Amino acid sequence: MSKAEITKRNIIEKAANLFNQQGFAGASMADLMAATGLKKGGIYNHFSSKEALAIAAFDYAVSLYQQRYRHVLREQRHSVDRIKAIVTTFCGTIHNPPLQGGCPLINTAIDSDDTNPVLRDRTRQAMDQWRLMITKVVDRGTKSGELSESVDSDELASILISTMEGAIMLTKLYDDPLHIERVEKHLLAYVEQLRQHQPHQT
Amino acid sequence: MSKAEITKRNIIEKAANLFNQQGFAGASMADLMAATGLKKGGIYNHFSSKEALAIAAFDYAVSLYQQRYRHVLREQRHSVDRIKAIVTTFCGTIHNPPLQGGCPLINTAIDSDDTNPVLRDRTRQAMDQWRLMITKVVDRGTKSGELSESVDSDELASILISTMEGAIMLTKLYDDPLHIERVEKHLLAYVEQLRQHQPHQT
Ligand SMILES: [Mg+2]
Ligand SMILES: [Mg+2]
Repeated sequence: MSKAEITKRNIIEKAANLFNQQGFAGASMADLMAATGLKKGGIYNHFSSKEALAIAAFDYAVSLYQQRYRHVLREQRHSVDRIKAIVTTFCGTIHNPPLQGGCPLINTAIDSDDTNPVLRDRTRQAMDQWRLMITKVVDRGTKSGELSESVDSDELASILISTMEGAIMLTKLYDDPLHIERVEKHLLAYVEQLRQHQPHQT
Repeated sequence: MSKAEITKRNIIEKAANLFNQQGFAGASMADLMAATGLKKGGIYNHFSSKEALAIAAFDYAVSLYQQRYRHVLREQRHSVDRIKAIVTTFCGTIHNPPLQGGCPLINTAIDSDDTNPVLRDRTRQAMDQWRLMITKVVDRGTKSGELSESVDSDELASILISTMEGAIMLTKLYDDPLHIERVEKHLLAYVEQLRQHQPHQT
């Protein structure tokens, strides 16, 4: 990496942690300068606006989560086990967070939905990708007979994402892993119920 | 109400809608002045600081939700039906919101958890009250035999609140009621399963 690329990468990493904790309006230019050790011009050399930086920081934050899923999905074969791995991986981030401030999807959704259409649309795209990751696993499972035919993949994605994101909100509010642990246990049992038991081979 | 009380109430109502959409840092003094039609001094006559106003606005926003539950809980007798009424009432707010910006609990939790301990503690207290409302209904149900003995009220409160709050986030992000409708259907079916069926009277 060139020196310019290293600087840019450093700005993105620091900005991702700031925006994820303080929100778009709450992370000031002064905060960004303090975190990166750069003057305003040093940041604007690399990003045309605070919004352009927030988008790059969000993309980076989301990529840190995506990497974790890619890794664990490769280790599981059965659709039920793959869905469970998604749940366990997300809930496990509380003990081993890829960045400060919790999940960038819920944070940026809440922050941008009524205030910033550009950031909101980026969050929709990232959420679409997460939903797609889940629906692909589920659809393959219903097709192969591993999952009960009655499972609707889009419905299940809405339910899983809602429950996990709400739980990270509670756990961060109380600074207590209890809530996400309860939800993880609940969702693993729920997903296990969707396993299609094959008729005995005779 | 005196003229001063009417003015104060108007500031709180306008501020509640602003903070709930834009967050604490995102709602500027200029926004508050424009929304209330008051000068800075006119607002500071009634509130010692922006934070004091944010707390009063949050309490007011939460009270709008609490009123709805009080009403519907009076109409149901059976614990299972009372829990379902809580779910239906919360999910129904999407079609008939008591204020702009979605649920003040998730919004203020996400906004304050890493930035503002005073607002965060207020949000914890409000969340404690919501959890208590649910656990009281559940505990009465397990004691009376209406609900399966195996139901843990604190666990169920974490699960219900997580799922509903996450769903309101998705629905607001996409501006699409689909997600909260899926979650409502899912939770009503889940709660129905917890109903204890009495042995036949002979
Ligand atoms: Mg919002
Ligand atoms: Mg936060």
